Amino acid sequence: MKKVILIPDSFKGTLSSTQICEIIESKVNEHFPDCQVVSIPVADGGEGSVDCFITALGGEKVNVIAKNPYFEDMDSFYGIIDNGNTAVIEMAACAGLPLVEDRKDPRKTTTYGVGQLILDAAGRGVNKIIVGLGGSSTNDGGCGAAAAIGVRFFNKKGEEFVPTGGTTSDISRIDISGKAEVLKGIEIITMCDIDNPMYGPTGAAHVFGPQKGADPEMVLLLDEGIKHLAEIIRKDLKKELSEIPGTGAAGAMGAGMIGFFDSKLQMGIETVLDTVDFSSVISDADMIFTGEGKIDYQSLRGKVVIGVAKRALKQNVPVTVIAGGADNGIDEAYKLGVTSIFSINRLPEAFETSRYKSVENMAFAVDNILRLIKSVAKKDSK
Amino acid sequence: MKKVILIPDSFKGTLSSTQICEIIESKVNEHFPDCQVVSIPVADGGEGSVDCFITALGGEKVNVIAKNPYFEDMDSFYGIIDNGNTAVIEMAACAGLPLVEDRKDPRKTTTYGVGQLILDAAGRGVNKIIVGLGGSSTNDGGCGAAAAIGVRFFNKKGEEFVPTGGTTSDISRIDISGKAEVLKGIEIITMCDIDNPMYGPTGAAHVFGPQKGADPEMVLLLDEGIKHLAEIIRKDLKKELSEIPGTGAAGAMGAGMIGFFDSKLQMGIETVLDTVDFSSVISDADMIFTGEGKIDYQSLRGKVVIGVAKRALKQNVPVTVIAGGADNGIDEAYKLGVTSIFSINRLPEAFETSRYKSVENMAFAVDNILRLIKSVAKKDSK
Repeated sequence: MKKVILIPDSFKGTLSSTQICEIIESKVNEHFPDCQVVSIPVADGGEGSVDCFITALGGEKVNVIAKNPYFEDMDSFYGIIDNGNTAVIEMAACAGLPLVEDRKDPRKTTTYGVGQLILDAAGRGVNKIIVGLGGSSTNDGGCGAAAAIGVRFFNKKGEEFVPTGGTTSDISRIDISGKAEVLKGIEIITMCDIDNPMYGPTGAAHVFGPQKGADPEMVLLLDEGIKHLAEIIRKDLKKELSEIPGTGAAGAMGAGMIGFFDSKLQMGIETVLDTVDFSSVISDADMIFTGEGKIDYQSLRGKVVIGVAKRALKQNVPVTVIAGGADNGIDEAYKLGVTSIFSINRLPEAFETSRYKSVENMAFAVDNILRLIKSVAKKDSK
Repeated sequence: MKKVILIPDSFKGTLSSTQICEIIESKVNEHFPDCQVVSIPVADGGEGSVDCFITALGGEKVNVIAKNPYFEDMDSFYGIIDNGNTAVIEMAACAGLPLVEDRKDPRKTTTYGVGQLILDAAGRGVNKIIVGLGGSSTNDGGCGAAAAIGVRFFNKKGEEFVPTGGTTSDISRIDISGKAEVLKGIEIITMCDIDNPMYGPTGAAHVFGPQKGADPEMVLLLDEGIKHLAEIIRKDLKKELSEIPGTGAAGAMGAGMIGFFDSKLQMGIETVLDTVDFSSVISDADMIFTGEGKIDYQSLRGKVVIGVAKRALKQNVPVTVIAGGADNGIDEAYKLGVTSIFSINRLPEAFETSRYKSVENMAFAVDNILRLIKSVAKKDSK
């Protein structure tokens, strides 16, 4: 093997995509010391996404002071990749749930800092900004981020304010005329892997509110607030967002990104593949390693493995999948470009036990896949 | 791939070695329709061993009337392979535990029928007889089998009798002068995969007596009887057997095979490898598939996988191991000739759950190994 591509998703709860790349790379180096390894740890938009892009493409982190979820200044950051042309922002960097550990309250938290990061990146002359959703502590529909770029919100009395989860229902009018000029012409892509609508039983508040600290009563309040926001956006921005899949992501930040930032929502894997120019990267590759925590029927619909496989199939590059588990009903994967699938479970053990062995199990599986490849290649070159 | 060899051990409690061969063969046919498949399901001497040899080498089953564990006539069998030159006998065919389901009593059961099978096979002109130990209902030290070939046992009063587990302590003298002439010049190999000595805390009665129906008191009686038998053999046959590893196998049948039949005890896998002329079979093979229920530190000491690997290494044929579980501490396997090791666990599940999915898990693992091999071979032939 002369060149392999590593492009795994994270194994939720056990291994980050960066860790997986490191394990596989070290094993490839061991068995094929002359082989070039291209690591593209897949970012899903959540915490760690900036690092993933920088690992895959090179680049640098920019440190910025921005507002935390409680409107307090904090040290935040974003990434600059692609020779300074693209910025990557993860909203968790200033609106994340770990930042409000002891004082979770989605009625009060804001995405204001995210808007500041976007504005700062725009000021550096990038022509594209990727915003990753996920891991947020907020339910403000992106109103905070919008306020930071000059969108103005008014209540019934005509007073301007920055809405948070508990006050989006007070919005009477939105004025986007003051939006920062610097954003003009910049393409903004929002990474979003979930399908939830803005409000209702499967909306932002009902599904994700509780983990952000909302009790049942608060969930209803937040849900009403987002529903009201959708109506005002419809009235003042002439946009119908409520049913668009993903608008409910990250406390309806998905809706805010479309409504206030004219962004489009896109699966993380598609964003990564586009950004790294995947088709070019794999054109001379011998093999691609990808993986997911669990490959199942769900995985066949737009998730990492199939996103990778579909593009690899066009160029006939073999795709080996390494999974934490491989369920039934996945035969279609082979038609979609997957070459082979291996599970990392060395022993018959329940997840409660095996989860703590993920690193060694992954290393063992990869090691043996590479040993097999080596033996077949050797035999064939005889 | 032009030729592959399948030589797996059984996965105890889930898959027989024959089943495993069938699963792998069907997958090889699917992915490499032109590939020759040689199936050598490994026999361990227990139930199914005759079928394993016939599957591996061709041959036929011979049906014989022989004594069951209670000296009653039953329909029994053995196998003839190697163009009529070798007989394969599994003692379970007439002394097996399933034959005494409702009346287990190792004080009373006999191996007499095993001797009859040996005698019958000898009468057909074979020059080698393989006797598989395992799965027995007896604890007679092989005295029953010996009696069937003309060995005579006498008590203190000088009365001749056929000792069983409960009466070996009554033996006062053994006379082997009447041993059947027809056995002369026939090599007898005893397959025996366990190391237990004749008697004592790790001997036949203590370790295996309970599963044959012995209560603690009976275990002591049986153990005393075997100890006594060892003394008489020492006295009359001038053989010191008690400490030889494996003499405690199958109710001390291991001792009887050495003492009365001049047989040697040998690991099942070595017997299989010799019998199929393994080195010749693999000389033009592209790959060997072997496997064990669990590969661990124990497996590295003379078990199936390593037995196979060591011989394959001499001829540089890659060995892929498929296991129900792969434990830590097995790195030495690679030095001993194993190319790669794959575990069949698709999902992180405890054995209580996964054991019922062994067929599908095995098929899935093999399927993907073959898919990988195919993709590598294709890439390399470009």
